[in-house]
Amino acid sequence: MAKDKAFARLPGFRDFPPEELQIRSHVFESWRRISRRYGFQEYDGPPLEALDLYTEKSGEEIVGQLYAFEDKGGREITLRPEMTPSLARILGERSRAMPKPIRWFTLPQLFRYERQQRGRLREHFQWNVDIIGEAGVGADAEILAVALDALRDLGLGKNDIVARVSDRRLLTAVLSSLGVSPEHHLVAFEIVDKVEREEASRSLQRLREECGLSESDAEAFLGLVEDGGPEDIARLHGKGPGVTEALADMQEHQDILARLGLGDFIQFDLRIVRGLAYYTGIVFEIFDRNREFRAVCGGGRYDRLLELVGGEPLPATGFGMGDVVLTELLTDRGLLPDVARDADLFLVSITPELRPLAHEIARAHRESGRRVMYALRDQSVKKQFSSASTEGARWVIILGPDEVEKGVAVVRDMASGTEAEVSLEELRAGKGLGGDDA
Amino acid sequence: MAKDKAFARLPGFRDFPPEELQIRSHVFESWRRISRRYGFQEYDGPPLEALDLYTEKSGEEIVGQLYAFEDKGGREITLRPEMTPSLARILGERSRAMPKPIRWFTLPQLFRYERQQRGRLREHFQWNVDIIGEAGVGADAEILAVALDALRDLGLGKNDIVARVSDRRLLTAVLSSLGVSPEHHLVAFEIVDKVEREEASRSLQRLREECGLSESDAEAFLGLVEDGGPEDIARLHGKGPGVTEALADMQEHQDILARLGLGDFIQFDLRIVRGLAYYTGIVFEIFDRNREFRAVCGGGRYDRLLELVGGEPLPATGFGMGDVVLTELLTDRGLLPDVARDADLFLVSITPELRPLAHEIARAHRESGRRVMYALRDQSVKKQFSSASTEGARWVIILGPDEVEKGVAVVRDMASGTEAEVSLEELRAGKGLGGDDA
Repeated sequence: MAKDKAFARLPGFRDFPPEELQIRSHVFESWRRISRRYGFQEYDGPPLEALDLYTEKSGEEIVGQLYAFEDKGGREITLRPEMTPSLARILGERSRAMPKPIRWFTLPQLFRYERQQRGRLREHFQWNVDIIGEAGVGADAEILAVALDALRDLGLGKNDIVARVSDRRLLTAVLSSLGVSPEHHLVAFEIVDKVEREEASRSLQRLREECGLSESDAEAFLGLVEDGGPEDIARLHGKGPGVTEALADMQEHQDILARLGLGDFIQFDLRIVRGLAYYTGIVFEIFDRNREFRAVCGGGRYDRLLELVGGEPLPATGFGMGDVVLTELLTDRGLLPDVARDADLFLVSITPELRPLAHEIARAHRESGRRVMYALRDQSVKKQFSSASTEGARWVIILGPDEVEKGVAVVRDMASGTEAEVSLEELRAGKGLGGDDA
Repeated sequence: MAKDKAFARLPGFRDFPPEELQIRSHVFESWRRISRRYGFQEYDGPPLEALDLYTEKSGEEIVGQLYAFEDKGGREITLRPEMTPSLARILGERSRAMPKPIRWFTLPQLFRYERQQRGRLREHFQWNVDIIGEAGVGADAEILAVALDALRDLGLGKNDIVARVSDRRLLTAVLSSLGVSPEHHLVAFEIVDKVEREEASRSLQRLREECGLSESDAEAFLGLVEDGGPEDIARLHGKGPGVTEALADMQEHQDILARLGLGDFIQFDLRIVRGLAYYTGIVFEIFDRNREFRAVCGGGRYDRLLELVGGEPLPATGFGMGDVVLTELLTDRGLLPDVARDADLFLVSITPELRPLAHEIARAHRESGRRVMYALRDQSVKKQFSSASTEGARWVIILGPDEVEKGVAVVRDMASGTEAEVSLEELRAGKGLGGDDA
């Protein structure tokens, strides 16, 4: 039996021993807290789904990135690579009976099998927040506010992160205004999506060759994409169909976020289009200001997705925020909490005969909600104090024969080192540790 | 595209829409709370593991029950059917450097592909709690105390549930005392494990034929298994090797649990042996007293497992408690909390011009930690109050033009129906909702 080889963790997967899990929980708790402050309700779905839930929407090419297999019943199934199709499926069964808008969030683990990605993870946890059944820009603003507020809750400020916001309808309107025919819009989106990673000459060449733009129009378009603000779009393409409405929505979006205290986190940026084909309106990505990391979060409006997977036609907007890039960023900024053991109380028995008393006192303090520990066997006093220290105990109760004879025990405050004799009666009632043990 | 068929949930899997997720969270929160009170730390591992992590321990026959497949790198992998092998693997890398005992817990989702189980689930969540590195009975008692305390925390009392406790060493000692040779012990365990579901005549026949017991010894053994207490074992087999020690441990186990306030939940029962081969000492299962449900929890000591999967030889004891049977039992006893929406505050704008003010007030109250909602578009006052009611809002702030002109708004307490005018200044500071909003 090849021990070391056989029982390795699968590549691309993480273990979460307590010190790692505490960090994960810190992030999860913030995600949940902020979701609830905005009135969102948590849901979950199975990690396994039928394969065609994804292929129907994204085409067969996605299969190459999935943990897909055939189950023993001959079903083609896969570990979920994203959550939105599951959301659409779950809502498909029930949305008609639900009051709108629906505000749901979830914290699923997602899986992608990506080859040749040295060190790249094949799983991550992703906070998904969605508003379903509200077409207005108020929902788009609310969604982005939730994302930004959670990042703020985790300690990231306006100098740390920025939400780059665009609207696919604006880009579409500009392309139409330039005479690009609708069948070339998707390839134009793709060119815009890559504009930050591509040589300008290559982007210009593609805009000419693949979208049919003249050299000057391609240059003007690229300039607008890279540096243009809403006012430039209004000036150059204000007469195009839908431009005025989309610009008004963008203004309202920014105004709402400003009133929610998040105006300094927002930046208009036409380069944001989002990779997935199903977005239909306002889209955004959140980055660290220095662009040292990949996007922390991405989302937008997807008004046709639910219909596409067989549900009620409902407008929707939402985002996903993964735990991996976020945790890297929080680590970089020194914003993760200290990982430490934090028992409230450790009971030390000077003689083995006093261990039963330790159990009784422990019981009372646990019922008061405290984290209480003691040695699980007869141990030297020295070893017991060492354990109390390892467990980060705030208080130690020392049960000694002489004191117990008198009906008391010594309570030591481990931070200050001060000691006090406290009656066993009080200790057996779950009290006696100091000011805040009521 | 066959909508209804294509996008069904996989059989045996559950969705958790908010009303189901609230119930799951209620159970999870109790599990976590009690784990922490006993000083346990949470960990997690990947839902996918190498197949041989399970086959090595349980043999090839387990493969028939696994969601196992070959990944794109040619690895034989599987969704985890239980957590202990992952625990052993994770500890294998690090246990030598850790202070003992190690107290860890986790809440993984586990997967089994069982055929022909109509309505039977193929996944469940299971609370796993383990103490590693402590061979003494104090650890066994602590483990069972954690399990029982969580059930008590969820509202189940001594009249609802019982922990049936045995010790494999006792059963082994009795078998040896009866002259059953060691190679027949495992089959004897299997017969005892099935004794409650099998005709007595069949059990007796098997004890004679497969364990070599005489007719009278088989009857005496079966009688002891079914009704015998520690005193009967002491009287009949007290001279057998190991019997005295195992009985002393059993007494100490019961004494500790009594001092922890859990004595009324414990019942000695030799019929409990646990199915898995790796248990080595005290074992237990927790049932509802009326035996209307399957076991709620099962666990015991497994001193050789870590070594078996390539880790440090460390004694260990632990249990698993699934969410499915437990939730059925809690439902049956009416112990699940009411599932309700519970927004703190809903802001109603009498005119659209006041929505910006609603955003500003919402921001302040969210920063005070409240759950705050408002309409995401212009809506009639009637519709806004209807939403406030749907969301279970405790307070409604009514922003009307006349009041706002005066610098105030009306705060309605939705439970009592009382209203009060509060200054906008106070509301913008996240205050003004009543006594407990400080």
